[in-house]
Amino acid sequence: MLTQSGIDAAMTRAFELAALGPARGVNPRVGCVILSADGRVIAEGHHRGAGTPHAEVDALSRLSPGEAEGSTVVVTLEPCDHTGRTGPCSEALIAAGVARVAYSVDDPGDASSGGAERLRSVGVDVIAGVRREEGEILLDDWLASARLGRPLITVKWASSLDGRVAAVDGSSRWITGREARADVHRRRAAVDAIAVGTGTVIADDPALTARIDDRLAPTQPIPVVFGRSEVPAAAQVRAHPRGFLTSPGNALPGEFRALHARGIRSLLVEGGPRFASAVIATGLVDEVHVYLAPLLLGGERTAITDIGVSSISEGMRLAVRETLPLGPDLLLIASPKGRH
Amino acid sequence: MLTQSGIDAAMTRAFELAALGPARGVNPRVGCVILSADGRVIAEGHHRGAGTPHAEVDALSRLSPGEAEGSTVVVTLEPCDHTGRTGPCSEALIAAGVARVAYSVDDPGDASSGGAERLRSVGVDVIAGVRREEGEILLDDWLASARLGRPLITVKWASSLDGRVAAVDGSSRWITGREARADVHRRRAAVDAIAVGTGTVIADDPALTARIDDRLAPTQPIPVVFGRSEVPAAAQVRAHPRGFLTSPGNALPGEFRALHARGIRSLLVEGGPRFASAVIATGLVDEVHVYLAPLLLGGERTAITDIGVSSISEGMRLAVRETLPLGPDLLLIASPKGRH
Ligand SMILES: NC(=O)c1ccc[n+]([C@@H]2O[C@H](COP(=O)([O-])OP(=O)(O)OC[C@H]3O[C@@H](n4cnc5c(N)ncnc54)[C@H](OP(=O)(O)O)[C@@H]3O)[C@@H](O)[C@H]2O)c1
Ligand SMILES: NC(=O)c1ccc[n+]([C@@H]2O[C@H](COP(=O)([O-])OP(=O)(O)OC[C@H]3O[C@@H](n4cnc5c(N)ncnc54)[C@H](OP(=O)(O)O)[C@@H]3O)[C@@H](O)[C@H]2O)c1
Repeated sequence: MLTQSGIDAAMTRAFELAALGPARGVNPRVGCVILSADGRVIAEGHHRGAGTPHAEVDALSRLSPGEAEGSTVVVTLEPCDHTGRTGPCSEALIAAGVARVAYSVDDPGDASSGGAERLRSVGVDVIAGVRREEGEILLDDWLASARLGRPLITVKWASSLDGRVAAVDGSSRWITGREARADVHRRRAAVDAIAVGTGTVIADDPALTARIDDRLAPTQPIPVVFGRSEVPAAAQVRAHPRGFLTSPGNALPGEFRALHARGIRSLLVEGGPRFASAVIATGLVDEVHVYLAPLLLGGERTAITDIGVSSISEGMRLAVRETLPLGPDLLLIASPKGRH
Repeated sequence: MLTQSGIDAAMTRAFELAALGPARGVNPRVGCVILSADGRVIAEGHHRGAGTPHAEVDALSRLSPGEAEGSTVVVTLEPCDHTGRTGPCSEALIAAGVARVAYSVDDPGDASSGGAERLRSVGVDVIAGVRREEGEILLDDWLASARLGRPLITVKWASSLDGRVAAVDGSSRWITGREARADVHRRRAAVDAIAVGTGTVIADDPALTARIDDRLAPTQPIPVVFGRSEVPAAAQVRAHPRGFLTSPGNALPGEFRALHARGIRSLLVEGGPRFASAVIATGLVDEVHVYLAPLLLGGERTAITDIGVSSISEGMRLAVRETLPLGPDLLLIASPKGRH
């Protein structure tokens, strides 16, 4: 007999299977376990990345025709209901004659959601939200960015205590110390993409790689250069191990959606001041990372310029979530009030 | 017989006596104990503030003529050697025929030091530096400012995380929260004087009082308005409980020395940006207090303007000494590198 605790145990296994899947890209990590009517595990599956079968279809493929009839499918994400590179999972499950589907997290997609409804409409017993919190943690930024329809956006800068990113003559190496710079590289390695304005590419010629102890980190963000100026032929970003993308920057919300559609779940905006300010002005910022160096510079080269705020009441209020000492510097991690 | 531990015990008592003296003003807290040749306490004294006898003279005055002969004078500060509003203590001690003087801290003054030398030159036995560290702690900012020949100078501002003190339209109430503002008032109550530029007086008309729970604090700093513009007739500072001083601001180091000569040991520079930047540019800043509010404003109204730094290597490097959360805000207390 299939019991609640049998479904729970299968979900534990499904979470394990999901974790084998892609940490990056368009598609989420999903795991699936199929239980026979009497509660035995008869198949397992997981999703391996865009263009490969979804977890349910992967699991069904391990069974001979008819074997799934009357079974219970335990899956970490609501079965999809749209035709992408693979057909809708809802249909595959119906065709296989499953009796019951238990899933953890609702599908956040506009196009892909509705699987549960479709299954119910043909009499499949659907149990939604099984250990939802664990399921959401597993899906991490895929879920958050899917709900937003854009990457999670972090705007980062390194400034003096008085908010300058360079001295009057433009010199800026180094404002922060070794520890802070190493932290930047660790965070670069953890995001899908880094965004910069053409101004920074032209002025600083940054490599935009994630380096740890002067070696390339095993994972690299894709650089995205925003602006209509051409990236100089000799620019270091042209030699980036993942290539680079460009985006005009004149319609940022749509451009962020387009990056999401390419599988970019997290975007680290690294400046310069004009581009970062434009991003802040869109209101589409999830986190602000400010590396503050104990240094006064004065002058005009502020970390951000105009963010469309004219009076104090319009100021972008943040909640500081972490204050991290990094050698002599301080990293403040803050989120706009009311977000997350 | 007079022993080392007898001198030590007398110094403990002299520290207690010193603490009865003035916490503010031109003169320091000094205590004195006179021991007979056989080690009994025969007199005590302390200094009560400018224009009153120094501690040694106060103690000597308790003795009948001749009684101090052959005695040991234990005093927290080196006896002075100059004629101010009172005669030099060195002479008074010599005239009284004391055999020995034990003191804690060397007199830091250019004009007043030399007492120990004078005493030795006439054969008085002088023991210098008895429990000097404790003595220095007791003298606190009097000693530090006396050594510098100017008040201890703290430059303070409250800014958004991006270093702005006001929004584009000039509105600035309130950048920081209740806790940070209360902290400012507590620190105002602890200094001898607050300095502001005429620009701030004209634009903001601040009261420049220290208020605790909307009531005047028991101790108030003297406001000093820097600049040549006239303080408006209706300015709140004109109603300040301690009156106010003005200073032209065109020769800051000398003006700071003049404030010190009036007994101002500690000066809190509260802006605005132009005046604070000029003070920073002098290099005569001992502490920087930055209240950072988790808020982004953008625009041109930066907390400091030009501080005479043109390249990153000339930047004023600070060492952060404290990071204090105050409600949603953060107070960073930093000192220029190499100072203190
Ligand atoms: N300390 C730090 O953290 C840090 C980080 C980065 C840069 N920096 C400094 O910043 C300086 C460069 O900054 P910057 O402000 O001049 O250049 P920037 O912000 O890097 O680039 C400005 C350019 O971004 C493009 N852009 C794309 N979308 C935009 C939008 N929505 N709004 C505005 N611009 C958009 C425009 O390019 P097109 O004109 O080509 O269309 C614009 O000219 C350099 O000196 C660099 O050293 C410091
Ligand atoms: N958030 C904060 O912490 C804070 C604090 C204070 C003020 N503020 C804001 O700052 C604004 C006013 O700032 P501000 O920069 O215009 O004025 P300011 O710095 O208060 O005053 C400038 C004036 O200071 C005088 N001054 C004296 N010595 C000087 C020197 N060595 N160098 C330069 N100036 C000297 C000059 O006056 P004369 O021309 O009369 O000779 C000069 O015009 C206000 O809007 C206020 O709201 C913010």
